[in-house]
Amino acid sequence: MGNEEMMSIAKKRGILYPSFEIYRGVAGFYDYGPLGGLLKTNVMNLWRKYYVAGEGFYEIEAPTVMPHDTLKASGHVDNFTDPMTQCGECKEIYRADHIISETIGEEVEGLPDEKLTEIINENNIICPACEGKLEPVKSYNLMFKTQIGASGKQVGYMRPETAQGIFIAFKRISRFYKDKLPFGIVQLGKSYRNELSPRQGVIRLREFTQAEAEIFVDPTNKDHKNYKNIEDYILRLFGQEQQLTNSEPITISVKEAIDQKIVSSQTLIYQIVLAREFLNDLGIPDEEIRFRQHLPDEMAHYAIDCWDVEVNTDQYGWVEIIGIADRTNYDLSSHIEHSKEDLSVFKEYDTPKTVVVTKPSFNMKKFGPTFKGDSAQAKEILENTDPEIIKKSFETENSYKFSIGDNQYEIDDSFVTFETKEEQIKGERLIPHVIEPSYGIDRILYAMLLHSYTEDMTEEGEKRAYLKIPAKIAPIKVAVLPLVNKEPLTEIAEDIEITLRQNNLISYYDASGTIGRRYARADEVGIPYAVTIDYDSIDDKKVTIRNRDTFEQKRISIRRLPLIIKELIEGYTQFEDVEE
Amino acid sequence: MGNEEMMSIAKKRGILYPSFEIYRGVAGFYDYGPLGGLLKTNVMNLWRKYYVAGEGFYEIEAPTVMPHDTLKASGHVDNFTDPMTQCGECKEIYRADHIISETIGEEVEGLPDEKLTEIINENNIICPACEGKLEPVKSYNLMFKTQIGASGKQVGYMRPETAQGIFIAFKRISRFYKDKLPFGIVQLGKSYRNELSPRQGVIRLREFTQAEAEIFVDPTNKDHKNYKNIEDYILRLFGQEQQLTNSEPITISVKEAIDQKIVSSQTLIYQIVLAREFLNDLGIPDEEIRFRQHLPDEMAHYAIDCWDVEVNTDQYGWVEIIGIADRTNYDLSSHIEHSKEDLSVFKEYDTPKTVVVTKPSFNMKKFGPTFKGDSAQAKEILENTDPEIIKKSFETENSYKFSIGDNQYEIDDSFVTFETKEEQIKGERLIPHVIEPSYGIDRILYAMLLHSYTEDMTEEGEKRAYLKIPAKIAPIKVAVLPLVNKEPLTEIAEDIEITLRQNNLISYYDASGTIGRRYARADEVGIPYAVTIDYDSIDDKKVTIRNRDTFEQKRISIRRLPLIIKELIEGYTQFEDVEE
Repeated sequence: MGNEEMMSIAKKRGILYPSFEIYRGVAGFYDYGPLGGLLKTNVMNLWRKYYVAGEGFYEIEAPTVMPHDTLKASGHVDNFTDPMTQCGECKEIYRADHIISETIGEEVEGLPDEKLTEIINENNIICPACEGKLEPVKSYNLMFKTQIGASGKQVGYMRPETAQGIFIAFKRISRFYKDKLPFGIVQLGKSYRNELSPRQGVIRLREFTQAEAEIFVDPTNKDHKNYKNIEDYILRLFGQEQQLTNSEPITISVKEAIDQKIVSSQTLIYQIVLAREFLNDLGIPDEEIRFRQHLPDEMAHYAIDCWDVEVNTDQYGWVEIIGIADRTNYDLSSHIEHSKEDLSVFKEYDTPKTVVVTKPSFNMKKFGPTFKGDSAQAKEILENTDPEIIKKSFETENSYKFSIGDNQYEIDDSFVTFETKEEQIKGERLIPHVIEPSYGIDRILYAMLLHSYTEDMTEEGEKRAYLKIPAKIAPIKVAVLPLVNKEPLTEIAEDIEITLRQNNLISYYDASGTIGRRYARADEVGIPYAVTIDYDSIDDKKVTIRNRDTFEQKRISIRRLPLIIKELIEGYTQFEDVEE
Repeated sequence: MGNEEMMSIAKKRGILYPSFEIYRGVAGFYDYGPLGGLLKTNVMNLWRKYYVAGEGFYEIEAPTVMPHDTLKASGHVDNFTDPMTQCGECKEIYRADHIISETIGEEVEGLPDEKLTEIINENNIICPACEGKLEPVKSYNLMFKTQIGASGKQVGYMRPETAQGIFIAFKRISRFYKDKLPFGIVQLGKSYRNELSPRQGVIRLREFTQAEAEIFVDPTNKDHKNYKNIEDYILRLFGQEQQLTNSEPITISVKEAIDQKIVSSQTLIYQIVLAREFLNDLGIPDEEIRFRQHLPDEMAHYAIDCWDVEVNTDQYGWVEIIGIADRTNYDLSSHIEHSKEDLSVFKEYDTPKTVVVTKPSFNMKKFGPTFKGDSAQAKEILENTDPEIIKKSFETENSYKFSIGDNQYEIDDSFVTFETKEEQIKGERLIPHVIEPSYGIDRILYAMLLHSYTEDMTEEGEKRAYLKIPAKIAPIKVAVLPLVNKEPLTEIAEDIEITLRQNNLISYYDASGTIGRRYARADEVGIPYAVTIDYDSIDDKKVTIRNRDTFEQKRISIRRLPLIIKELIEGYTQFEDVEE
């Protein structure tokens, strides 16, 4: 129970429905409807509250269209692919690994194209649609490809992840933070994945929204300043060991998980804890969440440790909704290599280090006569050779031999002497590592809606099915209901609605049908509070406010209404504590 | 003064800079940096406060990738083009109308391709780069084109405007509003325009953010319920007449503009007023804003009235940042035609209308013998013929003649008689018109930043240049400054910063340099409030809060700080009224 009932409400009430319906739709695209758009905005703003205000990570926005060079550097042009096979007869296209595992019941994800072709041939796997022969498997790039400008020379792609926009702007970002590690940057926005044949509704979209944070850390120190505060938290971890031995997830404290090296760093596990807090805040309970570590052969080429946050669903099983990875310096190093720009940061030591250095001192008068045109190059070679090698050669052979092009040279210690002295070094340049929590906003919304679906009884003893969306993210905050559809009650109600809206509280006026029907309509889409205006309201200027979840009612003055609702939504006040 | 100084701060301080810099950039793309991303989010959320909470328009989110059919229907596949010419020698690409007007100084925008080719040939306009001959002008479609899926059969485009996502989902949206006109829907998000050679920085982007509202109205009634409240507002209008007679914009009341039919409807002018209020709220003053009506030959093919909201800039002159158009039923009608779906709404009359209808009554016994196999078709033809024509023929000819295929028939009034009766009609189906305010968020941000740039003197009498960004949208709300970089002041300051962030107030800790230098750094990026922690703070638990714009200072308790700053930002309290 869950998916079907929830999606039925979502479609009927304008939360979520397939895109382009009047043109018979396109798989992999969903619209957020009049209530869904608001809900998504609220979830994204709540995420910002955690990551931007809470963690202190600033937010950037880079383009979704990216030129070829940037994604060649990141590896996506070469590696962001799925294996595809096409029917030679009817030209239908299939994901090779899916068609194989559906036919022979074996997991073959990740195998090379040639191996997959072999398996198809050996098992005589044919086109399920027309029984035609399947063509050899080839890699299909999952990026939407386009052209920038009219010349036809500049290939562009829709970005496959928001992260790359952060890495490419790293120089600017690092300067913003005055090079002081650790620092974090977030980006929220669309990413794209041109799936071969998406079939899982909102779980597998061709266009989706990510919220990603890239936390740049010193590679030698991935500790977290708030680690002490989370040490005793208990997590349900499904580590590599449990998966490989077909065991159940383990229940373990943060401290134990770090001490036993199950999770690779404090910063990574801090992100696991933060993700759980965020999901709890969305109303998804702990028992529906687990943390699954990627197996060694499943991990992306750039990662050394990766944990998926998975949510339990009735329709799709455990679904990944957040991924938390240690991407090392893979991305920055790739961009250094391809762009030839220096993306390192200077790490100042707490106290300068004293090191012993050996430096050559040249007798330049002897260089000209000996090396002639090779003089400058000879000096450069000697400067860049380990002094110990030259000194040892002087000691054992009384000379040191080297060549420039075809010319052989031999020098003794009248050409160069070495001086040893102490030097103070203030710091060093390093390429930061990156810890990345990557949130799939559409899947999170789906999981939130799924777990908000509730069936119970109303105060009147009637069956009720509704979305118990937490007040802080509910698209509509208040239903405004005149007891009867007549003046002056309707007029008072309309005034209340306007006042609430002026206070940035989305409210919804409903005057048609019995009060029970109207509560039901409001409950169904998760409106947390309903305000009823009755005949007493005319004189006492008070209204009755009802709590969706508990049916509790309070009678409060119209004047105090906006403030009270704000405090309830922000969680500053509990409903039972509202003074009448 | 303005553009250069502002953009210099924006680049240096991480607000706005060209994208993909380390790969030598791509024209038409800009990044919002660590402060720019926050600023943009704040502006978009303020827009939502006006349109979603304020106007009661719900928010949807439709995909940015759209299949061919949808944009064929909207007219973009055929008409969203720029005239392009290519150099036959060096293959450089130019916008034909731009290269002509730059060479011969004549405005040729909107002329057909053949005419532009003619002008190029007649005036011997050659390639400015290599002096090669320019090829004939052709229409270049401005949409980024791509493929959906791997088949190569499904062409897709990046959307050119957010509006189409609303029109395509109109059926769902209208059902959400129970078909009750007027209603509005908004969408905020990316749109794309693959410019030939964008050259105007953030003013002409290939990827940009729109905030659009589509307000669906009864075509026979475009009045606005709040019109009375805005009647006396004074606007600066640059109408068609003033433009055609080379006159100055006129200053006129809303009521006069409507009565004199300068603006076509109350709903449209209400949007002009709302746009101005929004811009004022962003700190752009009235004298830098004007409303310019599109000239008849400039108007989009779908519009009957269109007003640009323009802002004055030193670099680009008057720049359109918002467009407000009456798009009529053009879009819905196009989608009805192409999708074959009914996108009309049922308009119920206030009171049912009584109409006189004439209905035929058939003597079916005579049909079989006379019409045989044509009986059913004969009845249908007679039912669908205007009764008055048949009745008149009976009267004058005593018969009525018609044919089915090759068969000629003649009937008299024994076959059919007519009865006249009164019927009640409750309403009619109609295709709504659309009034659309379309906000260019990037240009609005640019205009806001430009007009926020201020030069004056500090309290110390030193020159100051800074971005006077309104507090409600400033990316950082508070600078937290320990008077000296020593404990316990730094500790108190750090605690304050954490508390502010927990209250969703983005704050910025700065302990290095003199207090004057730190004020200057904070002012430069528009931080509205600075809090200084001094030695007295240790005992009295109070801090000094400074107002960026007035240098006014108040000493308030640390405990009250978050609430006071919230109230200042929301505008509930003025700085001078803060109680110490």
